[in-house]
Amino acid sequence: MSTSKRIQKIQARLRRKEIDAILITQPHNRRYLSDYTAADHDIGESSGVLLIPARKSPLLLTDFRFQIQAEREVEDMAVMLYHKGLLPLLKALLPDLGITSLAFESHYTLHSVAEKLKEIAEQLSLTLVPLTGMVEEMRLQKDEDEIEKLRRSVLLNEEVFQQIYKTITPGQTEIDIALALESTMRRKGAESPSFETITATGKRSALPHAVPGDVQIEKNQPLMIDMGLILDGYCSDMTRTFVPGKADKKFMKIHRLVRKAQLAATREIRAGISAAAVDKVARTVIAEAGYGEYFGHALGHGVGLAVHEEPRLSSRNRKHLKAGMIVTVEPGIYLPDWGGVRLENMVVVREDGCEVLNQDTTWLDI
Amino acid sequence: MSTSKRIQKIQARLRRKEIDAILITQPHNRRYLSDYTAADHDIGESSGVLLIPARKSPLLLTDFRFQIQAEREVEDMAVMLYHKGLLPLLKALLPDLGITSLAFESHYTLHSVAEKLKEIAEQLSLTLVPLTGMVEEMRLQKDEDEIEKLRRSVLLNEEVFQQIYKTITPGQTEIDIALALESTMRRKGAESPSFETITATGKRSALPHAVPGDVQIEKNQPLMIDMGLILDGYCSDMTRTFVPGKADKKFMKIHRLVRKAQLAATREIRAGISAAAVDKVARTVIAEAGYGEYFGHALGHGVGLAVHEEPRLSSRNRKHLKAGMIVTVEPGIYLPDWGGVRLENMVVVREDGCEVLNQDTTWLDI
Repeated sequence: MSTSKRIQKIQARLRRKEIDAILITQPHNRRYLSDYTAADHDIGESSGVLLIPARKSPLLLTDFRFQIQAEREVEDMAVMLYHKGLLPLLKALLPDLGITSLAFESHYTLHSVAEKLKEIAEQLSLTLVPLTGMVEEMRLQKDEDEIEKLRRSVLLNEEVFQQIYKTITPGQTEIDIALALESTMRRKGAESPSFETITATGKRSALPHAVPGDVQIEKNQPLMIDMGLILDGYCSDMTRTFVPGKADKKFMKIHRLVRKAQLAATREIRAGISAAAVDKVARTVIAEAGYGEYFGHALGHGVGLAVHEEPRLSSRNRKHLKAGMIVTVEPGIYLPDWGGVRLENMVVVREDGCEVLNQDTTWLDI
Repeated sequence: MSTSKRIQKIQARLRRKEIDAILITQPHNRRYLSDYTAADHDIGESSGVLLIPARKSPLLLTDFRFQIQAEREVEDMAVMLYHKGLLPLLKALLPDLGITSLAFESHYTLHSVAEKLKEIAEQLSLTLVPLTGMVEEMRLQKDEDEIEKLRRSVLLNEEVFQQIYKTITPGQTEIDIALALESTMRRKGAESPSFETITATGKRSALPHAVPGDVQIEKNQPLMIDMGLILDGYCSDMTRTFVPGKADKKFMKIHRLVRKAQLAATREIRAGISAAAVDKVARTVIAEAGYGEYFGHALGHGVGLAVHEEPRLSSRNRKHLKAGMIVTVEPGIYLPDWGGVRLENMVVVREDGCEVLNQDTTWLDI
């Protein structure tokens, strides 16, 4: 779907809600609606916002630093620069555009910024409408173009994994491997990693979010690699856990149990099932084997322009999956004095089942 | 200063304001007060918050994924886990601790989260106090321990630059050089780059925030490298612009003008001068040479745990510099059809002048 079609959808929703315009501050939403690829250094340092009026042409508002990039990338809207910050520009612009009610993204607007918006709204007799998830809701179900981009992201990620996997030898450090993976991603055309690569050896693999350290890979011990990249805006996310050297019985047992949980959950995924039900399938497999307390996180999460997005496959998410959603399936077991095993694939929810995007089979069915 | 001393300072401020506790959500503030090094994936995915009561022991609230890391790193406070999210834990915890007024960081709390906090506050008859900058204000003036850490960060960054600078040859791409810089940072012990490394060749150097591309370095054309790293939590940030091959007269002229502006501003920096006055010194040098319109950003920014923090050296910041502040001095001239030159050093504001932390002299006085 083109950005102009997406904008039209947003405009139709605004008109139904009788709101004159919406301010899009969330960077992935901004990219989804404009193709503008700039990232924000952090939420306090925006590289631009979209102002989408319900009945007029949309605008990308940004500053001098991003002018050239914005004008080159954005086709369906005009670029307007602010020189003294966004809020003074809005104060001048909103009355000019006849906007008397303005929605903003409550989930990506700082409380302090919302307070300043309120001041302007009072001065202009403007109605402010905090909204959550209008664009995210559109982003939940991917169209075939997006699925194709996600597929290419997954396949490139696997290509990078396989290339480096072959070169892993004890003596290398976690950082060595993480750097090799991340450099290879970039050389093969990825925009960047989609999150900080995790390479965790031995007991360190019991930390689900380990940061790679200057620590040598231990022979005959678990090595967990959780990696992803961004290609053409779309993220991949994959985890493999294996043993450089010889795996012992305990590893084989834990690993097979995690894989069994992953396969069981994957078999249940289809349009119509609740996220909690999918989570429960995997959790039950692990709990029945006596490891329930060692699987402390949710089963998975949506992936798209953001590496972590809705829907969460968690016990608390009662919502039903829909066709075109893309989620990770990543059960794990973490034993503090031993290590951890997590296996993660990405799947597309289809009407009658799901399609596993991953092709890589390294250390899966062992 | 130890984290416990910093906590005591915050507690004294809370008591003066008659507030029972503050919730610290901003990751750098969290690290400043606790030594907990975890990063947040983004503002919607916190790796923990601090609850600092005015008269009781502080707590780090986090989830299962970060338990081991938190317990290992944090010495001066207890770690408490939330299983169903932060807000349900707070709802149970605040009455237990006798907290009837709670401050939160307005500048690092989403509007949507603040709305949920308000609901809890109503249920508990709790007074909510949005605050901005209480910890940031403490972080503005660095103590000698922090200055030493920043100095080491700057020197390591220069060591990385010098090592890779020697290897730059036409035929390499922008991405090659960025990757070489970032890998070398990590191998030499940096936690990570402090921002995405900029390597921009030829006309691309006219984009102040260029993203490295699969573009070959052009011989005899400007090459701008803007790079920084995080060492022991503290950031560095340096820009050099030079010419692989032979620089022409135009480059020499623009470069010398930028350097002249940098030196002029550096000479004026001391405790007591306003940030705007320093910005003006550099801006005047460039404007008087006829390039004023091509210097579109502020002269500099503070650096510490965050790579961009207060004080901004901008025409709009009337505040006066204080001893122990650390700022960048980075004038630039960007000519869209030609390229850009930016030169950036970091300096410590002292009572009677400033100390330039950078030792690297590559292509500075040419």
